[in-house]
Amino acid sequence: MKIRKAVITAASPAQRDLPLQTLVDRDGERKAVLCLQVAEMLKAGVEQVAVVVGPGDDIAYRSAVRMYADRVRFLIQDEPRGYGHALFQAAAFLEGEPFLHQVGDHLFVTANGEGAAEQIVRVAEENGCAVSGVQATRETLLTSFGTVGGQRVPGVADRYTVERVAEKPTPTEAEQSLIIPGLRVGHYLCFMGTHVLTSNVMDLLGEAVGNPVNERVGLSPVLDRVARHEKYLAVQVTGRRFHLDNRWGLLNAQLALALSGEDRDTVLTELVSLLATART
Amino acid sequence: MKIRKAVITAASPAQRDLPLQTLVDRDGERKAVLCLQVAEMLKAGVEQVAVVVGPGDDIAYRSAVRMYADRVRFLIQDEPRGYGHALFQAAAFLEGEPFLHQVGDHLFVTANGEGAAEQIVRVAEENGCAVSGVQATRETLLTSFGTVGGQRVPGVADRYTVERVAEKPTPTEAEQSLIIPGLRVGHYLCFMGTHVLTSNVMDLLGEAVGNPVNERVGLSPVLDRVARHEKYLAVQVTGRRFHLDNRWGLLNAQLALALSGEDRDTVLTELVSLLATART
Repeated sequence: MKIRKAVITAASPAQRDLPLQTLVDRDGERKAVLCLQVAEMLKAGVEQVAVVVGPGDDIAYRSAVRMYADRVRFLIQDEPRGYGHALFQAAAFLEGEPFLHQVGDHLFVTANGEGAAEQIVRVAEENGCAVSGVQATRETLLTSFGTVGGQRVPGVADRYTVERVAEKPTPTEAEQSLIIPGLRVGHYLCFMGTHVLTSNVMDLLGEAVGNPVNERVGLSPVLDRVARHEKYLAVQVTGRRFHLDNRWGLLNAQLALALSGEDRDTVLTELVSLLATART
Repeated sequence: MKIRKAVITAASPAQRDLPLQTLVDRDGERKAVLCLQVAEMLKAGVEQVAVVVGPGDDIAYRSAVRMYADRVRFLIQDEPRGYGHALFQAAAFLEGEPFLHQVGDHLFVTANGEGAAEQIVRVAEENGCAVSGVQATRETLLTSFGTVGGQRVPGVADRYTVERVAEKPTPTEAEQSLIIPGLRVGHYLCFMGTHVLTSNVMDLLGEAVGNPVNERVGLSPVLDRVARHEKYLAVQVTGRRFHLDNRWGLLNAQLALALSGEDRDTVLTELVSLLATART
């Protein structure tokens, strides 16, 4: 299995300005969040990236990724019918191929060279199956994330078979069906926003979108069905996930990039100066 | 003298996305830089704000300050003829009144309640003259700022009479004519991007703009003429100036806001966690 295409979903009406926010990358260049995400996809080896956006947003977003103009196309989600519906807009673009998927409001910063998308694509291509990137997450944060239940793959570090998926479970739901043997007490495996998914996911999304009872279509219910019917792995990725839409998400992502880049000392010096003068 | 109008210049073609970058304000709300600046002007008591922008930028900027729609208007600088030329676009809007002026690429964060613009307007209204906000700045940073020479006003803390103004002086030029008696050795008084200016400044800018030999028109040469012919004060403002277009300017401004806001502990906790995991 070779992953040649990627889809970034960035169509949430409440987060229209998020992909255009800029962060200074490790190389010292200020880049739009969308630009960092496209670069991460390309670094993982994909050839074409589709970005699903809300009506009217493609003009500003296109400008933000103009350096990758020949590798990126924009797809419009005409109505806000949920995350799964946004992803389904890429069905024609994908032509039945397995694909890398990244949510537009997360950024992942790794301390070493290999990006999160790279790690996930490698595991997917080796195993020929769907793979979700996950992070061990404290119970108190479950209300923000899709969460997986399953088993550790024997003999392989940080690898799990996914047996079910629940969207933003309550602690009680999590305790009943999502505890992973061997994980630290009170911790669960939550999505970090990057997946490799198969054409089967698109078929199931198409069914959900076509069903008139579904005003909104999520991705987690479809992934729960995938977990019960096909081989589906989770890989615990090394690095830090930043939920950019959280109040301090952009700040923390920028700090993580800055502290792992060549200007670390400059940034730390200024930080100490700020701490010394800011009043408590 | 009452200051009723303000002008923000944000027309630099190299910084088109800067006013749209968002920062989380002390109140926990994520706001565009331009929105924070307009709020600072209104807090200083002005009634109307004009924002000078490059062609085509008014649409996105207008959306960023929609909460102040009835107080803000946009003026277009059709050609990039410099900072002074941008400011001169506001001549008709000002109708000969003295005005508050803020450059679009600086942000000032004060530790206490009173904003920098408020402090400057208060001194201008009390003294009925032009006033520039300044900060004591190390000699090595002079290449980034307009710098004033003058004398301390006897008996008033942090107040100076301005006798001359030089734009980005060399250390040699500064040593020859910009040393302020009583200031720390190797330090000069540099602009922090906020001024109250009189109609005379607009007249002098008009002359400079109208002169065909001037391809670009700066503000500092005009302020140097003002310093030699009318009462002109500088006030050393308490707080920190952030040059947002510097590589780490947005990050440092965000940190300063965060560390002086109600989420200080949350931000510090995450910061320590990042420092503990980021590799050197």
